[in-house]
Amino acid sequence: MRWNLPSDRVPEAWFNVTPHLPEPLQPPLHPATKEPVGPDDLAPLFPMALIGQEVSAEPWVDIPGEVLDILRLWRPTPLVRATRLEQALGTPARIYYKDESVSPAGSHKPNTAVPQAFYNKAEGVKRLSTETGAGQWGSALSFAGALFDIDVMVYMVRASYEQKPYRRILMETWGGRVVPSPVDDPSHPGSLGTAISDAVRDAATRDDTHYSLGSVLNHVLLHQTVIGQEAKEQLELAGERLPDVIIGCCGGGSNLGGLALPFVPDAGVRLVAVEPSSCPTLTGGRFDYDFGDTAGMTPLLPMYTLGHDFIPPPIHAGGLRYHGDSPIISNLVKAGRMEAVAYPQGKVFEAALQFARTQGTIPAPETAHAIRAVVDEALAAKEEGTERVILFGYSGHGLLDLQAYDDYLNDRLDA
Amino acid sequence: MRWNLPSDRVPEAWFNVTPHLPEPLQPPLHPATKEPVGPDDLAPLFPMALIGQEVSAEPWVDIPGEVLDILRLWRPTPLVRATRLEQALGTPARIYYKDESVSPAGSHKPNTAVPQAFYNKAEGVKRLSTETGAGQWGSALSFAGALFDIDVMVYMVRASYEQKPYRRILMETWGGRVVPSPVDDPSHPGSLGTAISDAVRDAATRDDTHYSLGSVLNHVLLHQTVIGQEAKEQLELAGERLPDVIIGCCGGGSNLGGLALPFVPDAGVRLVAVEPSSCPTLTGGRFDYDFGDTAGMTPLLPMYTLGHDFIPPPIHAGGLRYHGDSPIISNLVKAGRMEAVAYPQGKVFEAALQFARTQGTIPAPETAHAIRAVVDEALAAKEEGTERVILFGYSGHGLLDLQAYDDYLNDRLDA
Repeated sequence: MRWNLPSDRVPEAWFNVTPHLPEPLQPPLHPATKEPVGPDDLAPLFPMALIGQEVSAEPWVDIPGEVLDILRLWRPTPLVRATRLEQALGTPARIYYKDESVSPAGSHKPNTAVPQAFYNKAEGVKRLSTETGAGQWGSALSFAGALFDIDVMVYMVRASYEQKPYRRILMETWGGRVVPSPVDDPSHPGSLGTAISDAVRDAATRDDTHYSLGSVLNHVLLHQTVIGQEAKEQLELAGERLPDVIIGCCGGGSNLGGLALPFVPDAGVRLVAVEPSSCPTLTGGRFDYDFGDTAGMTPLLPMYTLGHDFIPPPIHAGGLRYHGDSPIISNLVKAGRMEAVAYPQGKVFEAALQFARTQGTIPAPETAHAIRAVVDEALAAKEEGTERVILFGYSGHGLLDLQAYDDYLNDRLDA
Repeated sequence: MRWNLPSDRVPEAWFNVTPHLPEPLQPPLHPATKEPVGPDDLAPLFPMALIGQEVSAEPWVDIPGEVLDILRLWRPTPLVRATRLEQALGTPARIYYKDESVSPAGSHKPNTAVPQAFYNKAEGVKRLSTETGAGQWGSALSFAGALFDIDVMVYMVRASYEQKPYRRILMETWGGRVVPSPVDDPSHPGSLGTAISDAVRDAATRDDTHYSLGSVLNHVLLHQTVIGQEAKEQLELAGERLPDVIIGCCGGGSNLGGLALPFVPDAGVRLVAVEPSSCPTLTGGRFDYDFGDTAGMTPLLPMYTLGHDFIPPPIHAGGLRYHGDSPIISNLVKAGRMEAVAYPQGKVFEAALQFARTQGTIPAPETAHAIRAVVDEALAAKEEGTERVILFGYSGHGLLDLQAYDDYLNDRLDA
């Protein structure tokens, strides 16, 4: 069963969680002075509209009409009840997912790529630089660049650049330019941290270029809240009141935040972040000020971190290979409003395969982390003999990650 | 703009075009006796329910509830107006497309894979053999096999097997088994014709196995008519009466037939088949009885053909590399009710790229053939200064065909 909404039901404002957070957000600090950064510090990298959204305390932020026009190419996304998975598990739980894989780039990432391209275009920016890991974010920004006629320069983690040629071609098909990172060391496999350093350096040294980030920052999570707002309306159509638990995979936090933040004021709703055991930022890291990148060029952010020099092992869920986490997500976890759980890769793909063979679609390795937690939650409900409404974020499809499935099916997967 | 229909608006009967054809369909002939084949001749390969549908003269055929339950995992598919493409072309034409790429396998093929698996399962069949070219059909049948717990054996054209590992992995993720064809000559690149021979031989020599075909036959086109029926309802929602012209790419004919057949009784609606210049079955072949496969094991079908020993050049649109065409499509073309046009590969990808950079999604190389014709039709409307409603079949996405885009972008594409 699927619940669609008509095009005119795309939310017309973003939901700002800041006023609802358990504790006030600490400000980012300047890397040199350790003082809170101001708008002038950020102006070489971001348009003023986004800098304003980064620190906004307004409960709602209007979405520009030009952005809505493009979001409506694929939004509202469907809410789906995973009936066949429920049956296979024999669970009394009702499992719903919000399907963000239907976007042109195949994930939730275009929800913020489009407004970021729009605000930069509006301020006359001709070129954007960014980083990408597995390629989801670089694809999304290349797509948005094509629609707004902005050049996009993508620094792609070298290991992925070499292993995932289809992702590179996808970006190039939309007109993006892609180079492996780190640019100054062809023998280095790279990480999200090194690619952020390359992209920030590019933007900081060119007048015609701004930098664009696909997760972590407040304005990125803000843009993603269309997901949770639509899901609330669709759950009502499905005859549910509120979910008992919301589950999402968490790398930088934008997918999980997009779905979960509109439910933060609903006190009874459990919120669960799922991360890889091999990059356990929330479950194994410390809460501290740390850099967003490897080279230490970004502001210091208040977040859970494994240390900015942490290089995660090369698991297939490239989007979850990040040493830090969004300050908003970190705030919620630190205050106990959000739970976190970690899984090893093998258990994750076991659940992904069960999903593919019951529901029919192939989830991205990142998304499969959420599915693992959903399956365990549904089995717990069965054990307890209690009903439960589970909502999870189907953040992307795995059609460009099939090598991971091949490795799993042939026992070549690292734990 | 998109028009969605709720899950309960999936059509509950298939539309049978047979009573509406300009001339009666000629029967298939037995390859040895040259007499019309009867049910007993086909029983080793197909379940009786499908044999009955193959020759049915009933105007409507009910869709079983178990089939509807699965079709509703992704159907009704959206009808989309390509507003941004219209703007880029500056055309007064209104361009709509029916988006079949949203299915789990990424094309229209599951529309028939699901009922074929259902009817075989209902008659106790444990295993299905089939052929696949680029992999779209093999993916769809593997998907359906997973949902009905039927083993699926796929003979994949060797050239594609070696060039498109992601398609193979996709089938294996759903539990399908995939081997390259021809099985008896590892140096042969294969063709759809050789793969059909391998699959038919498999089914004919094993008691537990039936054969399944993804296009060409009457029952396959019948199953695809959910596409055109939904499109009719959605065009009304969009405020249109009937389209002036319907355009679809045509290999075996199931995608085009699925969209166009429900409009055959609407005399004013032009129907256009688009094929590759390098495999010009309708525009350059002869109408004759010919075999469906290379080895001459199938019944003789009344159709346009380039000769069953014709091996098309290795263009990227693997789904259009077939020497013959559906008898129903051939009947319509022969009687003048349907037009046909052919394009070289370079012109096709030029249109595909324009589509990707305006509408945002990446079409399959097969689908891009239709888009080429749509663009030319829209430019003709501009030239003439007349409005026109164009409806085309967006038969599949190109996410597993990105190598083709890379070749086009780097001038490595054969004409």
